[in-house]
Amino acid sequence: MKQVATIKEVRAEIAELKAQGKRIAFVPTMGALHEGHLSLIRLAKQKADEVVVSIYVNPEQFGPNEDFEDYPRQMEDDLKACKAEGVSLVFTPNDEIMYGSGTKYFSIDIEHMNEHMDGGSRPGFFEGIALVVNKFFNIIKPDVAIFGQKDIQQFQILKQMVHEFNHDIEMTAAPIARANDGLALSSRNAYLSDQEREIAPGLYRALKYVERQIRDGVMEPKLLLGHQQDELEAKGFKNDYLNVFSMKTMKPVKKLEAGSTYILAGAVYLGKTRLIDNIILDL
Amino acid sequence: MKQVATIKEVRAEIAELKAQGKRIAFVPTMGALHEGHLSLIRLAKQKADEVVVSIYVNPEQFGPNEDFEDYPRQMEDDLKACKAEGVSLVFTPNDEIMYGSGTKYFSIDIEHMNEHMDGGSRPGFFEGIALVVNKFFNIIKPDVAIFGQKDIQQFQILKQMVHEFNHDIEMTAAPIARANDGLALSSRNAYLSDQEREIAPGLYRALKYVERQIRDGVMEPKLLLGHQQDELEAKGFKNDYLNVFSMKTMKPVKKLEAGSTYILAGAVYLGKTRLIDNIILDL
Repeated sequence: MKQVATIKEVRAEIAELKAQGKRIAFVPTMGALHEGHLSLIRLAKQKADEVVVSIYVNPEQFGPNEDFEDYPRQMEDDLKACKAEGVSLVFTPNDEIMYGSGTKYFSIDIEHMNEHMDGGSRPGFFEGIALVVNKFFNIIKPDVAIFGQKDIQQFQILKQMVHEFNHDIEMTAAPIARANDGLALSSRNAYLSDQEREIAPGLYRALKYVERQIRDGVMEPKLLLGHQQDELEAKGFKNDYLNVFSMKTMKPVKKLEAGSTYILAGAVYLGKTRLIDNIILDL
Repeated sequence: MKQVATIKEVRAEIAELKAQGKRIAFVPTMGALHEGHLSLIRLAKQKADEVVVSIYVNPEQFGPNEDFEDYPRQMEDDLKACKAEGVSLVFTPNDEIMYGSGTKYFSIDIEHMNEHMDGGSRPGFFEGIALVVNKFFNIIKPDVAIFGQKDIQQFQILKQMVHEFNHDIEMTAAPIARANDGLALSSRNAYLSDQEREIAPGLYRALKYVERQIRDGVMEPKLLLGHQQDELEAKGFKNDYLNVFSMKTMKPVKKLEAGSTYILAGAVYLGKTRLIDNIILDL
């Protein structure tokens, strides 16, 4: 496994792999790799000959009051994990390499798809992600890119960017990896106290409960969702959102229809830690 | 020479050329090719093994009261001209292929560099150009792209986009091709009446006059520029702008300094026809 930090080096490595006719899968990460990331890497290996992982905590996707400074960084462990999974190339740029020091004149604007869910709660979040992923796509030029379903709005927005910007990249979402008690794996779970960690799976249980009710025929889940939010608050969560969204537009949907695809998604706080989770509903 | 209209076809052709190790130069055009375009193609041939030309009148870069409908279209002549110049591949997509029919969620936003010059006069113009050129770059993935110095603000903005978006493309500007009387060649010159065509070179003469004065030491050219604008109006032009701009920021500059690079640029109307021209000043 090779590790490179500069764009010139990563391009040279990619060019060599492409000259050998290798199909390349790309897994962008912010490091602090857990079993969820490793499942993305394993899926990447099924999809291509060589796996390229980026490890970069992108400042552009953090708001001024968010956890950019505290975000867990553990490069040595991450590199070991990548090596153990058979990753070919790890790209570990710094801010200077990704953004340079000159004036920025360009930004990527997103409409509608980022109005609700995490986009609604985190202004500029998805523009920051689109900016860095568009850069990574142009630097690495992968054949396929793997993202986690846990960040479903990110995946749908980036898939739309690939479509509108004509990136020649197959976009693949990997299923959510969970702890035994159902908690969706996340680098931010490291922030949780023992007590918070015990409460945390309650979000997924609430989603599963609502899912069952919808599958049993509740097509206007507003009251149901409101009740689950109350239950979550009673358990010690602070609610951000818990709702059903259109898979296509990322907008909340009041009345569900058979034959459509929805995302049942929630975001909560436990102390200062923000947790998200979702279930895709193919009705 | 091959002509293809779909993204799938153009990608297949490009992949074949790249598999042969060919270096590819790309010349994006809106058709109505004249000697200026041909000079871009000739420069492209010097820079690479194979030249790819796109012919597409991009609706996104025309304002609601601009000449999208009237813009000259002469596909057959253009294809003949490309063939005669040894172009390998011409990409002639339609609007459905470039933009599809679905909702658009993404746009490219530009700050500062598009506030003055043509960006000031034509709101959304450079965002529309950036959008389509970013698409072309991802579709064609050229090694080098050739643009005309006549559209100097376009060139500087797209060069900045290549830098900020990490496109792996060498950006080259070709000198302005001129008629014998000095008029910068433009597809829009076709709109000019005989009488307007006779007056038209006055813009370049005004620029040359100001250039000489600056090179003779006039470092605050405000009065000079104002006088030339009056002269142009007297000759039958309607002024849009005539000014000196920073090459880096595209902002007007009042006091010039030795060791810096400026653009002396003008835009005028003759009847409904908008003409632009410029001179680069390396002081």
